[in-house]
Amino acid sequence: MLSKFQFLKISATFFAPTPPKRSSFHQIVTFRAKLGSLMGSASYTTSSKLLFRQLFEKESSTYTYLLADVSHPDKPALLVDPVDKTVDRDVSLVKELGLKLIYAINTHVHADHVTGTGLLKSKAPGVKSIISKASQAKADLFVEPGDKICFGDLFLEVRATPGHTQGCVTYVTGDGPDQPQPRMAFTGDALLIRGCGRTDFQGGSSDQLYDSVHSQIFTLPEDTFVYPAHDYKGFSASTVGEEMQYNARLTKDKETFKNIMANLNLSYPKMIDMAVPANMVCGLQDVEAKVAS
Amino acid sequence: MLSKFQFLKISATFFAPTPPKRSSFHQIVTFRAKLGSLMGSASYTTSSKLLFRQLFEKESSTYTYLLADVSHPDKPALLVDPVDKTVDRDVSLVKELGLKLIYAINTHVHADHVTGTGLLKSKAPGVKSIISKASQAKADLFVEPGDKICFGDLFLEVRATPGHTQGCVTYVTGDGPDQPQPRMAFTGDALLIRGCGRTDFQGGSSDQLYDSVHSQIFTLPEDTFVYPAHDYKGFSASTVGEEMQYNARLTKDKETFKNIMANLNLSYPKMIDMAVPANMVCGLQDVEAKVAS
Repeated sequence: MLSKFQFLKISATFFAPTPPKRSSFHQIVTFRAKLGSLMGSASYTTSSKLLFRQLFEKESSTYTYLLADVSHPDKPALLVDPVDKTVDRDVSLVKELGLKLIYAINTHVHADHVTGTGLLKSKAPGVKSIISKASQAKADLFVEPGDKICFGDLFLEVRATPGHTQGCVTYVTGDGPDQPQPRMAFTGDALLIRGCGRTDFQGGSSDQLYDSVHSQIFTLPEDTFVYPAHDYKGFSASTVGEEMQYNARLTKDKETFKNIMANLNLSYPKMIDMAVPANMVCGLQDVEAKVAS
Repeated sequence: MLSKFQFLKISATFFAPTPPKRSSFHQIVTFRAKLGSLMGSASYTTSSKLLFRQLFEKESSTYTYLLADVSHPDKPALLVDPVDKTVDRDVSLVKELGLKLIYAINTHVHADHVTGTGLLKSKAPGVKSIISKASQAKADLFVEPGDKICFGDLFLEVRATPGHTQGCVTYVTGDGPDQPQPRMAFTGDALLIRGCGRTDFQGGSSDQLYDSVHSQIFTLPEDTFVYPAHDYKGFSASTVGEEMQYNARLTKDKETFKNIMANLNLSYPKMIDMAVPANMVCGLQDVEAKVAS
C-alpha cells in the first residue's frame, strides 16, 4: 500500500520528465457539472480541466469512465472499471483524443465481467492497475481510504464502501477550486441508480453496505453526481440528493434494508466462477484454460 | 407549420399563467459543457440553467434525451426521441425531478422502434408532440428549419439534415449567453458517433446526407457535443471536431461516401414494417392489430 504522500509523489514523478507537446487534435472538449439552485440561475467563475466520457458494455451493462486532465501538457487519463471486451474501443478513443492513459482502476473485484486492466497494461504500455488493498486482489498499486489518485492537477479520493464485496471502494473527484464542481462519485456496485449491488457473495454484508452508503456517499454534497458501475434500465447518472430521496432500498431504515437484501432471491451469478478468479489477478488469468479445466 | 414568431409565442403563453412554485426537491443539478483549450485551462463566467440526462433503450440501442430549464419556476422539460418501451421510466424520472414535461420531440420517423410520443401524451397530460413538417408524419406541432423550440429561457434550433430519411432534422441548443456552452447537437440518425444512419429506405439519399452533415452539422463550432439517436458500441457522446476528424464515413470525399453507403449490404430492418406506420401517426397506431392483419 502506498501512503498518500508516496502516491502523490508517483504522479509528480510520472509527469516531470515529459516535455509539453502539442497534439494534432487542436480543440478539446470537457464536460463540467454545475449546481443550479431550484428557482434561478447561478453565475460563477470556474476553470475547465476535466474531459469526461461515459462508456457502456452492453452484455454486462457495465459503465466504464474515462477521465483526463486536458489542461496538463500530457493530458493524463484514467479509466474506471474497464471491461476486457471493450478494451480495444477504449484504447482507440484514448488515442484519438490524444490522451496518455496512466491508470486502469477497479472499484472492486467484479463477478459479472472480466476487468480490462490486464489487457490495457499490454495494449497501452505504462498503464498501472489500481485496486483497493482490502480487495486482496493483485494490481500494480493498492489504495486505502483517504488516498488520492492524481492525474495532472485533478485527483480521485478513495472512500471505503464495503458491503457488496469486502474490498469495494468509491472514487470521488476532489474537493477544491480546480476540481470538478459538483463532485462526481464513481460508486461501483455499492450504490446503483435507485438500487444497490447484491450482498450475498464475496464477503458481502447488507449491514455493512447500509453503513457504507450512508456514511461515505450520502454525506457528500447532495449535488454530487452518482456514476455507478452498472445500470440495467438505461439511466446514465443520478445525484446523491436524488438517491437520498428516491433510492428504492437505501431510503429505508437499516432493518428493512437488510430484510430486502435477504429476500432478493437472485440466481447464482453466471460469470462469477470465471470472473472472480480472473479479476483477482488483474484480469490476467488464462480464463479459457480455467473454464475448460 | 408554425412560423418562428408563432412558435416562440406559444412557449411564452404556456408559461405565463402558471405562478412560481417551489418543488419538494430543493437542490437540482445541472450538467454544463465547457470548452477547454488543449494546452491549458480557461476561466470564464457562465449561468447554469440546463438539466440534462441521457437515457438508453437497450433493445434498439436508442438514446432518449431529457432537457429542462431548472432556472424557470415551472422547470419546463422536453424529451428528444422517446421510446414506447421506456415511457414509464421517463415519466417517473420527470416526476421525481419535479419537471413539467411540455414537448415530446422526434428527430425523424424511426424505423427501428416505436416512438414514445403517443404514450407520453396519454401519461403526461399537456405534452405536445413535435416532428418536422418534411417528415409528413402526424404530430401536434410541426417544425421547419430555423424554428426555435423554447423551454423556459432555453431553446433548440431546428436544422434540416435529410438523407437518412427525407424529414430528418437535427436539434441544436441555442447560441447565446444564457444557452449551454459548448452547444449540443441532437443529430438523430444523420450523424452517429464515427458513423451515420443508412440511406436505403424512407426517401434516403447518401448524396443528400453527405451535404446535410457537412453543411448543417460540421459548420457548428468544433466543440459542439454530438448526441446521436443510437450507439451500438457503448459510446455516449462525441463532438463535431472529433467527427470531422475521425468519422469513418463522413471524413471521406462525397463519391467515396456514396460508394460506402451503396455497398453496406445491410439486412432489411426488422421493425420497419411495424414501426414506420406507427411513427407516422405519433406512435398512436394500434400496432398489434396492424401486424396481425
